[in-house]
Amino acid sequence: MDVAKTIADIRKCVATARAAGKTVGLVPTMGALHVGHVSLIEAARSRCDYVVVSIFVNPTQFGPGEDFEKYPRPEEEDFATCARHGVDAVFAPGASEMYPRENLSWVSVEKLTAPLCGRSRPGHFRGVTTVCTKLFNIVGCDVAFFGQKDAQQAVVIQRMVADLKVPLEIVVCPTVREPDGLAVSSRNKYLSPQQRKDAVQVYRSLVRCRELIAAGNVDASDIRTQMCEILRQVPGIEIEYVSIVDAETLDEVDQVQGRILAAVAVRLGSARLIDNILVDTSGQ
Amino acid sequence: MDVAKTIADIRKCVATARAAGKTVGLVPTMGALHVGHVSLIEAARSRCDYVVVSIFVNPTQFGPGEDFEKYPRPEEEDFATCARHGVDAVFAPGASEMYPRENLSWVSVEKLTAPLCGRSRPGHFRGVTTVCTKLFNIVGCDVAFFGQKDAQQAVVIQRMVADLKVPLEIVVCPTVREPDGLAVSSRNKYLSPQQRKDAVQVYRSLVRCRELIAAGNVDASDIRTQMCEILRQVPGIEIEYVSIVDAETLDEVDQVQGRILAAVAVRLGSARLIDNILVDTSGQ
Repeated sequence: MDVAKTIADIRKCVATARAAGKTVGLVPTMGALHVGHVSLIEAARSRCDYVVVSIFVNPTQFGPGEDFEKYPRPEEEDFATCARHGVDAVFAPGASEMYPRENLSWVSVEKLTAPLCGRSRPGHFRGVTTVCTKLFNIVGCDVAFFGQKDAQQAVVIQRMVADLKVPLEIVVCPTVREPDGLAVSSRNKYLSPQQRKDAVQVYRSLVRCRELIAAGNVDASDIRTQMCEILRQVPGIEIEYVSIVDAETLDEVDQVQGRILAAVAVRLGSARLIDNILVDTSGQ
Repeated sequence: MDVAKTIADIRKCVATARAAGKTVGLVPTMGALHVGHVSLIEAARSRCDYVVVSIFVNPTQFGPGEDFEKYPRPEEEDFATCARHGVDAVFAPGASEMYPRENLSWVSVEKLTAPLCGRSRPGHFRGVTTVCTKLFNIVGCDVAFFGQKDAQQAVVIQRMVADLKVPLEIVVCPTVREPDGLAVSSRNKYLSPQQRKDAVQVYRSLVRCRELIAAGNVDASDIRTQMCEILRQVPGIEIEYVSIVDAETLDEVDQVQGRILAAVAVRLGSARLIDNILVDTSGQ
């Protein structure tokens, strides 16, 4: 496995793979790799001949007071995880490689970035779309793999790729969950043992949502209320949002119909947890 | 020469050229091709094996009340000009091919787009950087060619390419002038015969600027005043700006030193004319 720290080096790796006629997949990550990332790597290996994992804790997607400084960076472990899972090249640039001087150029997506996490994290998605554009331009991949866990991010990136005619395909892979249902996340590390137990209520609220819809409840307001009740069983939880939105436009819905996204964000101790499910009622 | 109206078609053309090992150059234009564009085509032919000219009057870079509707679109003449000058493929998409639905994703460059033309044309450069990003993504060229005539555009595009790691090289070609010095522009068509004669004062103001600097004058304010005097000899001229700025940062300077850009924008009748010269005093 190659480990490239510079843009020139990863481009050389990819050029060699290209010259051998290989297709190239990219799994963009902030490191602290877990089984969720591994599922993306496996999806990439099944689709592409040559798999690149980028590891970069991108400063421009963190707001003031967020966890940029304390975000875990277990570099050697991450490299070992990549090697173990058959990754061909890791691209692990430093901040000065990705942002060598004041960054004046930004890629932004309107409307889709306003609701949900956009409300509490202004500038977050602009940081994500900008760094993904850089990564796509640097690696020149055919396919890039993202997790459904970050549902809004996936919708935003897909729209960016479509609008700007970025010559690659986006694959969104299912959320990977712990045995009790909690979505796997690098930020679960911030939870105390008790908070970790309580955190399952986030998933349970989504399961309840799915059950209510399956039982024919189409009243989004009622569903949200019942989801909030489940979340409020956790002492000290702060609910940031409980939303039922159109899965493509991310507009809040009154009536559940078509493809909808139920999405939750809470704060529990020092952790901010997000989770979601897609429900497609159009076939029902 | 191939004429492609769709993204799929131009990508097929370029893929065939790539498969034959050819390098690809792009000359992005809004059509109404003149000798300035031809100089870009010739530069592209001398640098690249396969030359694409895009012809697209991009709606998102025109503001309300600007000349989007009346901008000349002599399509057949443009195709003939391209064929005559050895262009390999013309990409001439319709608006719905480039903007098939509401465009939510934008590429913008901060700071550099604020002064000069940015002051009177809010949103113009966002439209330019967004459509250029689309064109670069669609064509996948190795080199793209722009004219020094649109000096701020060239600086903005170069910064965008550097910041976002766009995998191509930008070549900026010298301004082509009429025998009397007027910069060649599609918008010169809007001038009456008398206005056309008077318009040479724009160039003369820039020549005076260069002469003053060559004579050792470093007082930007004094130079601007003398340039304005030359422009004001034209009846009915409206001066939008007469600026002496750092050629890289586009910050207005007090003292002329290093590489500076002297740039002028005026309105004459229904035409908005811009012109500029680069002066490098660092070798003096």
